[in-house]
Amino acid sequence: MISRQAALLAGDTPAIAEAHFLAEAEPYDELLRPGGWINLGTAENRLLWDLLRDRWAALGGLAEEDTRYAPLHGTPLLRERIARLLAAGCRAPVGADEVVVISGASAALDAIATALCDPGEAIVVPAPYYGAFDTDLAGRSGALLIPAPLSPADGFRLDPAVVDRVLTGAREAGTAVRAVAISSPSNPIGEVHSPEVLAELVRVVRAHDVDLISDEVYAHSIVGGHSFTSALDPAVNQDWTDRTHVIWGFAKDFGLPGLKTGVLCTRDREVYAAVRALAYFAPVSTTTQARLAGLLADPGWVADFLAEGRRRLTASYEHAAKALDSYDIPYAAADGGFSLWLDLRRWLPGAGFAAEEELWREIFHTARVSILPGGAFRSPEPGWFRLCHTLDAPLVTEAVRRIAARLRGTGVTPESGVRT
Amino acid sequence: MISRQAALLAGDTPAIAEAHFLAEAEPYDELLRPGGWINLGTAENRLLWDLLRDRWAALGGLAEEDTRYAPLHGTPLLRERIARLLAAGCRAPVGADEVVVISGASAALDAIATALCDPGEAIVVPAPYYGAFDTDLAGRSGALLIPAPLSPADGFRLDPAVVDRVLTGAREAGTAVRAVAISSPSNPIGEVHSPEVLAELVRVVRAHDVDLISDEVYAHSIVGGHSFTSALDPAVNQDWTDRTHVIWGFAKDFGLPGLKTGVLCTRDREVYAAVRALAYFAPVSTTTQARLAGLLADPGWVADFLAEGRRRLTASYEHAAKALDSYDIPYAAADGGFSLWLDLRRWLPGAGFAAEEELWREIFHTARVSILPGGAFRSPEPGWFRLCHTLDAPLVTEAVRRIAARLRGTGVTPESGVRT
Repeated sequence: MISRQAALLAGDTPAIAEAHFLAEAEPYDELLRPGGWINLGTAENRLLWDLLRDRWAALGGLAEEDTRYAPLHGTPLLRERIARLLAAGCRAPVGADEVVVISGASAALDAIATALCDPGEAIVVPAPYYGAFDTDLAGRSGALLIPAPLSPADGFRLDPAVVDRVLTGAREAGTAVRAVAISSPSNPIGEVHSPEVLAELVRVVRAHDVDLISDEVYAHSIVGGHSFTSALDPAVNQDWTDRTHVIWGFAKDFGLPGLKTGVLCTRDREVYAAVRALAYFAPVSTTTQARLAGLLADPGWVADFLAEGRRRLTASYEHAAKALDSYDIPYAAADGGFSLWLDLRRWLPGAGFAAEEELWREIFHTARVSILPGGAFRSPEPGWFRLCHTLDAPLVTEAVRRIAARLRGTGVTPESGVRT
Repeated sequence: MISRQAALLAGDTPAIAEAHFLAEAEPYDELLRPGGWINLGTAENRLLWDLLRDRWAALGGLAEEDTRYAPLHGTPLLRERIARLLAAGCRAPVGADEVVVISGASAALDAIATALCDPGEAIVVPAPYYGAFDTDLAGRSGALLIPAPLSPADGFRLDPAVVDRVLTGAREAGTAVRAVAISSPSNPIGEVHSPEVLAELVRVVRAHDVDLISDEVYAHSIVGGHSFTSALDPAVNQDWTDRTHVIWGFAKDFGLPGLKTGVLCTRDREVYAAVRALAYFAPVSTTTQARLAGLLADPGWVADFLAEGRRRLTASYEHAAKALDSYDIPYAAADGGFSLWLDLRRWLPGAGFAAEEELWREIFHTARVSILPGGAFRSPEPGWFRLCHTLDAPLVTEAVRRIAARLRGTGVTPESGVRT
């Protein structure tokens, strides 16, 4: 018999993880497995490997000191170099002692939620939101997530007035709210929040005396000419920086999700001490940290790498958008992130999220394309799907062709007979 | 303001970690820093690096697949190879699906405690015990640790009758006990538990219908001709294997504490699912997993490596014991692990644990040798200290010389004037 706290968690495997491994088990290959799955469900950045491979190899092997005990909230060298990168991004000083390294952005989210909330206390999250927030922010901490439903009418763009109303409502209902959590750029929408919206959001959380958690794992994954603003940027946040906690990691901007290296940046010393204590339970391999510190050693290389990443991301986005356009599949335009937010409302076989689930199953099992239904992101309205485009362009082309064929009911499907 | 659950944790930094980093900051060097610290407080195995260095280098660099998402409870390849190693150790079949890989043995202990206990439920732990159990087993889980005090009269050897009495007493006091946790070989004592003692312990936990957690991170770190028996060995455990959960990791037997790779092995499917869900928050870098899988690829190499490790550990132990003997400093003989359990009772400057603390400070700050006081291990009696010997023999010689000088009050101390 397991504990009640474990039972809650064990029953709650994120749908994203399940679909990922199912789709990855039999991947599409034009020649070898033309009927295989194409996984556009997982936000992996597969556009960067050639830029990383040689650089990584040049970083050297395992050193004896890497085998030894090191501070469990990150080596001083890696924290220092991450602080430099974050400081450039938010245009404000960041110290190594304001950075905690932890085994993944999920662990960082768990740590900040646990540091801020006791079980039953709440975090308000504009919805749709990154589906794994349910597990990451609430699974171990015992926090309660309260969605702030954004409007489909303007493409679910972040509206601080909605957050304000939900905070007021929660307070009136007697719920202790400790924080508002956003992803920035937003996931699944891909909105790069404007300085004006962020400044207004800071004003709202300040007025309600709650902390702000800004998940900025896509900070450098910006499409085209859009410009990213961090929640710690002095242009949008002057007097609430002690109550603003930023998450980052190497999974998205560096295309290294396997390395499980997340970051929490906070200026609140008490929160820092708490997150550091929590990182004790989720440390990162010292040899991985040594390599990542090496990767960040030369700011010139980092700037070039991130700029080339943006160029490739933009090309990938434009390719996917064009493919969707060619089949008249509508979507909300994205400014950043790895995905497009498809509007498949007109193809729903019925009403409500049950119909969305039915369409998702059809696309997943028959077209053998993994995209994720809006319900997995707590979308306020059924019929929206997240499609990740950051992999080889021909795979995206083939996947969009399959989706379109399914939607039109032409029966053009992968040939199931040639699976190997 | 941080949450109550975080405040409990943030206020509770393990003393072991603090002493470690203080002592490591200014290490002794015969020529460059003769007055520097010698750290015999941390159970690091520094005897193996030359055996690992070339082997590791031959394992190759980062592969593209290592950068990608992988199952967060361990890659199938690494789990399979760990299962093979554990199976050989416990002389019973172990499946890869009975193994969870997680970011360190501390995280594994946290996961099993959280899987078994709700806050306020208890784990009985024979004392003295590994001091970080307080944080690892109780810090996040909310479990309550109840020491079962072993007797100084027989060198604190594991006595199932004491565990039985404490379990009975806890039940009578209305405490819900969910498990008994031991380290095997024991830490800090270094006892390799006999098959008879383990069989009797299994009988006791079975009679009380509680689970058994066996922390076997030192399973292969055995001194001399002693023979290790796992709690999962059919010779000692026939019908309680579903309720027996074994911890292992690469920190001790492989001398790789920096790699933060721990293991939980359980046959209970419900517990497995819970621990797997908890590993989501503490995954191991995939590139580290790939290298560790490579390290375990050849069972012949692994057997040779572990055998050579035992030879070196035995030589290290005998050297340290001889040094202590030469100064007539008594200790409890160890059969395994990295430490000796020094009996400094006769040198205590007074009564109780305050006197032990005073002697510890004297040795730490004046002799500049880090050994850990028994109080840090919840020793039932003051005056005992853990000395770790698994580093270069001359360092141990110098450290024992300094300790002896302090104990005899001869004033032979490191020259503070030559610190660099």
